[in-house]
Amino acid sequence: MDKNLSKDQLNQLKQQWLNELKKSQALSGPDEPPRNDLKPSVSAIECLINDEETVQCLKSSDSNAQIYMPFDFIQNYFDVYGKMKHYDGYDRFEFQQSNAKVVYDPKSPYTYTGVFMTFDSYNVEARERVKCISGITGVPLSTQWHIEGYYYGIQIAQFGMSHYSKHMTQKPPTKQVYENAEGSVQVLKQNSRWSSSNKYCLVENEEDKERNSRVIKFSTPDSIPLGSGASLVLGNTMEFILSFDLKMVANGSLSVVLETNDKMKQYTIHYITNSLVIDYDLKSNIYYGIGPSRTWRHMARDLLTDLKKGIGLTTKKQAKKVRIAIQKVSRLIVRGRGYIDNVTLSTSEHLTQFFDASQWMYLNQDKKTGGWKNDVERRLEGYPPIPAGWISAMGQGQGMSVLSRAYHVFHDPKYIVALSHALQPFTKSSEQGGVRATFLKTYTWYEEYPTKPSSFVLNGFMYSLIGLYDFKSLLEHEFGFGSTTYKLVKQLYHDGMTSLKAMLPLYDGGSRTFYDLRHFILGMPPNVARWDYHTTHLSQLVLLYSVSNEPVLKKYFDNWSGYLRGKVAKHN
Amino acid sequence: MDKNLSKDQLNQLKQQWLNELKKSQALSGPDEPPRNDLKPSVSAIECLINDEETVQCLKSSDSNAQIYMPFDFIQNYFDVYGKMKHYDGYDRFEFQQSNAKVVYDPKSPYTYTGVFMTFDSYNVEARERVKCISGITGVPLSTQWHIEGYYYGIQIAQFGMSHYSKHMTQKPPTKQVYENAEGSVQVLKQNSRWSSSNKYCLVENEEDKERNSRVIKFSTPDSIPLGSGASLVLGNTMEFILSFDLKMVANGSLSVVLETNDKMKQYTIHYITNSLVIDYDLKSNIYYGIGPSRTWRHMARDLLTDLKKGIGLTTKKQAKKVRIAIQKVSRLIVRGRGYIDNVTLSTSEHLTQFFDASQWMYLNQDKKTGGWKNDVERRLEGYPPIPAGWISAMGQGQGMSVLSRAYHVFHDPKYIVALSHALQPFTKSSEQGGVRATFLKTYTWYEEYPTKPSSFVLNGFMYSLIGLYDFKSLLEHEFGFGSTTYKLVKQLYHDGMTSLKAMLPLYDGGSRTFYDLRHFILGMPPNVARWDYHTTHLSQLVLLYSVSNEPVLKKYFDNWSGYLRGKVAKHN
Repeated sequence: MDKNLSKDQLNQLKQQWLNELKKSQALSGPDEPPRNDLKPSVSAIECLINDEETVQCLKSSDSNAQIYMPFDFIQNYFDVYGKMKHYDGYDRFEFQQSNAKVVYDPKSPYTYTGVFMTFDSYNVEARERVKCISGITGVPLSTQWHIEGYYYGIQIAQFGMSHYSKHMTQKPPTKQVYENAEGSVQVLKQNSRWSSSNKYCLVENEEDKERNSRVIKFSTPDSIPLGSGASLVLGNTMEFILSFDLKMVANGSLSVVLETNDKMKQYTIHYITNSLVIDYDLKSNIYYGIGPSRTWRHMARDLLTDLKKGIGLTTKKQAKKVRIAIQKVSRLIVRGRGYIDNVTLSTSEHLTQFFDASQWMYLNQDKKTGGWKNDVERRLEGYPPIPAGWISAMGQGQGMSVLSRAYHVFHDPKYIVALSHALQPFTKSSEQGGVRATFLKTYTWYEEYPTKPSSFVLNGFMYSLIGLYDFKSLLEHEFGFGSTTYKLVKQLYHDGMTSLKAMLPLYDGGSRTFYDLRHFILGMPPNVARWDYHTTHLSQLVLLYSVSNEPVLKKYFDNWSGYLRGKVAKHN
Repeated sequence: MDKNLSKDQLNQLKQQWLNELKKSQALSGPDEPPRNDLKPSVSAIECLINDEETVQCLKSSDSNAQIYMPFDFIQNYFDVYGKMKHYDGYDRFEFQQSNAKVVYDPKSPYTYTGVFMTFDSYNVEARERVKCISGITGVPLSTQWHIEGYYYGIQIAQFGMSHYSKHMTQKPPTKQVYENAEGSVQVLKQNSRWSSSNKYCLVENEEDKERNSRVIKFSTPDSIPLGSGASLVLGNTMEFILSFDLKMVANGSLSVVLETNDKMKQYTIHYITNSLVIDYDLKSNIYYGIGPSRTWRHMARDLLTDLKKGIGLTTKKQAKKVRIAIQKVSRLIVRGRGYIDNVTLSTSEHLTQFFDASQWMYLNQDKKTGGWKNDVERRLEGYPPIPAGWISAMGQGQGMSVLSRAYHVFHDPKYIVALSHALQPFTKSSEQGGVRATFLKTYTWYEEYPTKPSSFVLNGFMYSLIGLYDFKSLLEHEFGFGSTTYKLVKQLYHDGMTSLKAMLPLYDGGSRTFYDLRHFILGMPPNVARWDYHTTHLSQLVLLYSVSNEPVLKKYFDNWSGYLRGKVAKHN
């Protein structure tokens, strides 16, 4: 080679050939650097799908001539899932048949006193169809089928059982008590924790005979604005569940000032002695009614939930999802006249929330029918609407699962009375206002929705069986086998299990499960269960197998688990 | 640039940079030429399938970063189909959800006198499970459930109806008559068409009083070997269905010499007056028994089928698929003593084959039960074996479809008697030796397989309804509405249609159909219908909708047709 070529000239030549080569290979651009990773050689090829549409695919240039189809098409056509993941130092693509979440996999046998399925992972209050946690009852208000919000027994039962289950599985909360009125007598001006900008605000420590405890008495002028009054410094950056005992003797409010990571920075939640559900001034104030009660009550408020539901308030059925974090619970302000005690911030108050749910279930059971009535019209595709006031076997079952645990924890006999009463709808058909149906003159069923004709929703039926099992177990454990009530619950459970074992195959689509049998009842396409209902079916089968040892339940669990991974029934 | 660089030196430089670049890009080889077609830039990426296995995929290097999955994986995982096709000047890849064949799409309304579904496209005798077409009866022998071959009524009925349907849809055959003994009196030595190397072979033309026709009388010595005798030159290169009328008066044979495209070139098929089913000497001779009958009969032999079944003879259940073509039917040789007339080669003899099937159905109906009994044990997975002698609702239905057409064509009242008799098994349960079952105390069903418990095979049930419809229509058309038989067939058809309309949803998997209900009856995974049964379901729905106008049948046809193209039921 000619030694006269300069280095620059050589580089110039190199660049020239490089560009020629890139053009001839249609590389992605002249500036793209050479790459060291594996670059398989492929060409584009048209793919005709079922003689209907065309998708651009790739064909490898090696001797295999493998066809590669784009995941965008596969995802859409086969209803599967995939995403890029980076770990162990490299990228890969994760393909999933389903978007299924966790299936119940108990470490210890299921009992009516323990965790309920996977409910310890539920966060009912965060659901978009939960309008808020009522300040009056402490339980969620649903917007699922009605925009204004209403109490939906099943949601409340699930709220209760999620907190019960978390109570069983989570480590004990940490807590800070800011005021329990014990120790020395504290008066506003003598104590740095309480303060007020208004000299007519009084805070006193006195003995309460009803509670047999020292409590804080407060009194502020009627004229001062909401958010002012007697203020207790909290300054907690870790524990965001506020609990206290409260007795108001006149109208008033309790406000909590929060610092957040939001651009608004500071928000105040006002709990007011009226019947307001929730409101938000679109700036920094959120309002909850706590009702006009004049008696002592124990309240627990999840401040982050209350904050998010307030900011997320919309005129639509679904609450807006809000991303916000509390940085500090700054202070609490009381206004009006009343008594307060045991002001505490903690990381959880599950038993209080479970108690609120149990109490709601107890107070809202219909005395005539024993049912938890749903006061919204329910529409299922293909069926005449179910008028408001209907009873759900799932609601009865979930209610029984709550109340069985409530009796176990609180030992109040009123729960046994409610439980016994809850069996009544199982003995009456949908036409009679109950939940009982029969499949082709043969199998007894308990209807999640008392449609006419029947709909045979599987997951609701299995929840009802679990509720019956819970109550049956409670009676066996606490009261023995003698009562009429025991005989009834045992028979209802037995009949239901017989039907379940026989009818499971009717829910088997070979690659997915069906949500109900409306295809058979109404002659329409099967209502395929989305994957989260599919995993609910699986969790329920695990639970019912663990308490019954029925092999058929295990068999269906195994077959249906395979569907999550694309293992479908064989064709002939 | 330095002008002193020679062209060689420049090329040398170019090669040097090229090699460097190829190394850095890991191109597939140093000798690969630059290519001018579209070469998308991709890199390899690992794809993790359901956390279980790994598949090598491609990722496009553009900003979309599309993932491409190999069709080998897709095909296996999703059970779909694909192949390369070249037309309109370029290659494309054809993706298909199913490997489904044609669905019945009638040009004119279905009637009991017309084409049966898509049976005009059936070639029953070519099926691997058909051992051969019997020389004695002219109908197929099945090896489906028994290696030695047996008469299977359903297969014979389908053989008959495929020929009936072809008779309706195909253009009339071309034919050459080689000998009808009319015209001048022909004696062997005087006629160049007949010849023999043995001087004791006689061929004479004489009047046959029974047939009121002139016929050929032949006589050869007993001692001459098979394949020799009196020979008639045919030399036909176009028409390969041989037909003739034959009456033997002593043992003998009729041999046909064929030239083929095979390396063996020349084959001889011998039809012999014994009871042999089929045999092959593994060289050039194939043997069929035609029975010892001493009366006139009309026979039609599909020489290509007879050739292929002979060469394909194995000791296994499935006949070997043979690729061979006849180039010329050279000559026919008769041996022994007998009479022959109307020696013809044609492109089809469908009505003869249909007659043979009808005759078999008539002769082989069990006089006691009215059933076409199946003389092989039948095993269905999960059920106790059904002992030999069982009756099938599908067999009864297909038999009725044959005999209704047979009466229409041949007007022989014996077929009406057989048809009436064929209803009997529909009135008796499987336990009583019949085909009637009941689904959960509610719906009447006719069982393709009389399993205990029931199996509710859908396609067999619909074939039975079509058979009932055919006989019902025949009675309406030919005999009016008065008879007890008519009332019975009408009731059986009505009850069956009621069940079909109600129970179709139970066969709907949401993306495929089920073959039967054994999943419900036995508590096992659904027995998904392979695509050819799926299209049978569709064709049957088309037919039954066309005669009943029941909207639900149309609805299921539409939904289930979508499954062929990946249109699945929605999930909730």
